[in-house]
Amino acid sequence: MGNKEERVVPVPAINRMPFYLAFVKSLKRAGKEYVSSTLIADYMGIDSTQVTKDLSYTDIVGKTRVGYEIDSFITILNDFLGFSKTDSAFLVGAGSLGSALLHDTGLLHFGLDIDTAFDVDADKIGQTVNNIEILHIDQFRDMAAAKNVKIGIISVPVAHAQSVADLMVAWGIKAIWNFTPSRLKVPEGIIVEDTMMYSNLAVLFNRLYRQENK
Amino acid sequence: MGNKEERVVPVPAINRMPFYLAFVKSLKRAGKEYVSSTLIADYMGIDSTQVTKDLSYTDIVGKTRVGYEIDSFITILNDFLGFSKTDSAFLVGAGSLGSALLHDTGLLHFGLDIDTAFDVDADKIGQTVNNIEILHIDQFRDMAAAKNVKIGIISVPVAHAQSVADLMVAWGIKAIWNFTPSRLKVPEGIIVEDTMMYSNLAVLFNRLYRQENK
Repeated sequence: MGNKEERVVPVPAINRMPFYLAFVKSLKRAGKEYVSSTLIADYMGIDSTQVTKDLSYTDIVGKTRVGYEIDSFITILNDFLGFSKTDSAFLVGAGSLGSALLHDTGLLHFGLDIDTAFDVDADKIGQTVNNIEILHIDQFRDMAAAKNVKIGIISVPVAHAQSVADLMVAWGIKAIWNFTPSRLKVPEGIIVEDTMMYSNLAVLFNRLYRQENK
Repeated sequence: MGNKEERVVPVPAINRMPFYLAFVKSLKRAGKEYVSSTLIADYMGIDSTQVTKDLSYTDIVGKTRVGYEIDSFITILNDFLGFSKTDSAFLVGAGSLGSALLHDTGLLHFGLDIDTAFDVDADKIGQTVNNIEILHIDQFRDMAAAKNVKIGIISVPVAHAQSVADLMVAWGIKAIWNFTPSRLKVPEGIIVEDTMMYSNLAVLFNRLYRQENK
């Protein structure tokens, strides 16, 4: 187990795992007890060797002929993906997208608790969104230290994204979830994960328009 | 121009473009008039030949020595990405994530107008979120036809995602933006774009824990 944690898991493998998890949970709801890598592979539209390879990074062990035992598959994969343990995060930028994230209680379900939000807009400071307080960013440093928060979410206007990232790093944040279309420069050892919803939207538009022009 | 629209643009290229756009907009705000592919490449941390290749899918033309003219770069790329024209969409599933999306007015800024939301929960029907009405899903079909809506957003619990996708296709939707961890099966010609925020979260957790265990 210790060894596994040391192995670098490829990002595409991690990206597929929540789909495996959701599918296997659906089988559990349907009363199944075992699942084969072939069944998962068919659902995903990928090769079954890819599924077994992805799962080899975790402690999930299949049995010959019967496959993976569903209950332990779900427990182990939930743990592996970090969904079963709750980490606190601070969010900076309580504008439109930031407020949207504060409304998404699904994040808590996946192990992320947005503890506090920060902004510089006097109209927002002191307000709450979904019971999460919005404070002035000047309070970030002391609160992050007091609460030992390691995860920062950036949802500010893109022009301010790098400055906020620099402050977060100075204030002890180790992992940044970036929702802005900015390539953040951070020191080695700091983790940045980008979610660019609007990139997905661009891909969707591009395909739709090409289809319509046919 | 006609020819360009026929070319299949690789998804990674489209995914990089919103970052190019945001960066070039920041240069405009800083008073610059021209940008080179090298400058964009440095910002992105990629090779400049990749930048010129990506931009060759668009109508953006650079000038020798001076580079790309910033104003036309922004206009053309905005158009190319579908951000300058507004498309209407229907959202199904006004739960936590769905409501979050309804709160994100940034989507409108990127050319997507969520016209109406749909659900089956009697407590939600008739309510509005951010001035967007929530109706019973039974009204989807007639309204989609009347308003000629081609884009559907799915933010229902994962167990219902495939059924909702099937209904959307039957009701004339051509492009589905899927926020659930479900591999949707759709007929050929129907576009599906997945945004799995929680996959990004899993990657972030995985890296953070590996770091902490060092």
